[in-house]
Amino acid sequence: MMCDDAPALLNLFAGLPPPGPKEAVTVLLERPGLRLERIVSHGQASPEDFWYDQPEGEWVMVVRGAARLRLAGEAEDRTLGPGDHIYLAPHLKHRVTWTAPGEPTVWLALFVAVEEGER
Amino acid sequence: MMCDDAPALLNLFAGLPPPGPKEAVTVLLERPGLRLERIVSHGQASPEDFWYDQPEGEWVMVVRGAARLRLAGEAEDRTLGPGDHIYLAPHLKHRVTWTAPGEPTVWLALFVAVEEGER
Repeated sequence: MMCDDAPALLNLFAGLPPPGPKEAVTVLLERPGLRLERIVSHGQASPEDFWYDQPEGEWVMVVRGAARLRLAGEAEDRTLGPGDHIYLAPHLKHRVTWTAPGEPTVWLALFVAVEEGER
Repeated sequence: MMCDDAPALLNLFAGLPPPGPKEAVTVLLERPGLRLERIVSHGQASPEDFWYDQPEGEWVMVVRGAARLRLAGEAEDRTLGPGDHIYLAPHLKHRVTWTAPGEPTVWLALFVAVEEGER
């Protein structure tokens, strides 16, 4: 018996949005203290001199495509391809300096609320 | 300046364990109320008549490889390939009936603590 609230099987690469001026964010799961997002980039990068400075911790992985990430205090970008993942502590300032043009870059990002003093 | 606690860039497909009798679990991130795991299967399936029955909710995705999942109350397996993801509510009984032989199947599984009455 399959009931109406049977869980849906979804695909991360289904319904990829077309290129547009902004990255496309889809919330996959949200619970108190956490939010799991699919982010799709099409060549976007953070604006010049813009740094993300987030109160949450963020675990992020490139699933498809490619990107470059600059962390505050580092002299070089980190280059991310499929399967590359990194944990960004709260308030670790970072920018996306480049994403692959001409193809979608699909990220998974898990934002986690962090207690004062935790990393 | 790269300091000693600069975050590590890791790859989900690096250091895949060789085939063995059991699935291989690596905890990628653990915080109060959540645990993110990489699970690597090499043809393993749940034992006959064994059902997972977990107090946590579980969001799970096949990143590489293929698997079949049976949910309690359903007549057929769900087949999962790369990018397929599903959310399993707490105590939704389920079994892994098959994973691809001869290649690693790499899962991401996010376990989330759920309050009484939540799904």
